[in-house]
Amino acid sequence: MRMSALSERTGVAVATLKYYLREGLLPAGTATARTQALYDDSHVERVRLIRALTESAGLSLAEVHAVLAALDHPPTARHDLLGAAHEILLTREDRRAPAEDTDDEWTERARTLAARCGGTSTLVPRLATQLRAAAAGGAVLSDDLLDTYADAAARIAEADVTSVPEDPAAAMRQVVVGTLLTDPVLLTLRRIADEGVSMRLGQALSE
Amino acid sequence: MRMSALSERTGVAVATLKYYLREGLLPAGTATARTQALYDDSHVERVRLIRALTESAGLSLAEVHAVLAALDHPPTARHDLLGAAHEILLTREDRRAPAEDTDDEWTERARTLAARCGGTSTLVPRLATQLRAAAAGGAVLSDDLLDTYADAAARIAEADVTSVPEDPAAAMRQVVVGTLLTDPVLLTLRRIADEGVSMRLGQALSE
Repeated sequence: MRMSALSERTGVAVATLKYYLREGLLPAGTATARTQALYDDSHVERVRLIRALTESAGLSLAEVHAVLAALDHPPTARHDLLGAAHEILLTREDRRAPAEDTDDEWTERARTLAARCGGTSTLVPRLATQLRAAAAGGAVLSDDLLDTYADAAARIAEADVTSVPEDPAAAMRQVVVGTLLTDPVLLTLRRIADEGVSMRLGQALSE
Repeated sequence: MRMSALSERTGVAVATLKYYLREGLLPAGTATARTQALYDDSHVERVRLIRALTESAGLSLAEVHAVLAALDHPPTARHDLLGAAHEILLTREDRRAPAEDTDDEWTERARTLAARCGGTSTLVPRLATQLRAAAAGGAVLSDDLLDTYADAAARIAEADVTSVPEDPAAAMRQVVVGTLLTDPVLLTLRRIADEGVSMRLGQALSE
């Protein structure tokens, strides 16, 4: 298909597609003349992925670049693959809010929570930093609340990992893209459930 | 305390504190001379809240403004309060990725998921948009996976709402600030649990 058709199929303006081409996010099409090229379904898929990552997951174009590079060149061993995938996700979050290297009550609670949800300790400083920030911002963080979060995370992770396919390229896609794109889904489900519970509470209180 | 002491207590540079004052994020101190003012613990708390909202939750200063205005003038009825709090959170997310008004299979699945986690329908278009984006980006979204997410959200919400205090101002703070500041906590717990599960799987596969 011509670029105009690619634009129609994806709902993305031609100027934006040209920008993706120049930035190397979108592979060049097959040249048919000096100023014309043909695009196929792989381009449609790639454009949709770029849009999903920027709009729904809120990634910058530089971050999209890192994700696409990993998808195009996945490591072959499954274990390396999951490691590489997580590294991309973490580099992204580290840039936004670097984890502090402090050892206080929050580090201890973060360690307990990580153990509770069956996880490793590499992310404990990050979790501790977020808990510290939430507490400093005035959020009430009871043990019950945090334990519930950790238990919910453990159930989510079991389902996440079960959904990862065997094929390395597909697995990389599901771990990186799946996680980034379902983060907003999880947070919206939380809002929906919050509204439901608070509405029922409101009715109970006003009766 | 003088501004230099406020800076030391909060770890925020004097130039930044002056900026917060000019932008109206931080209330003026008690003037003691034409160019001097004294600050108290409420200023320390406010500065920490601003930092937590910008750094940990990733809010823009305009968004911080809206959150602070709501905290300073909470509605008195508990039900209005939760409504107002959710509105702030949603306005924020709507700006980033407006929900599409389409009625397709994703809208139907979003409706089913909202019902499953006991929630209302106002957020269904947003959830459908996020699901659509995740699917377009190539994430595999099985019914089992999404049901697990919805069930986890329902458990999280029960704990969230139980943690909301009776006092209106404190409740507003917990709903808005608590939700914004624990979103990153939840996502990190998910990463921690994901790593734990995939490491156990990797070991099982290599044995």
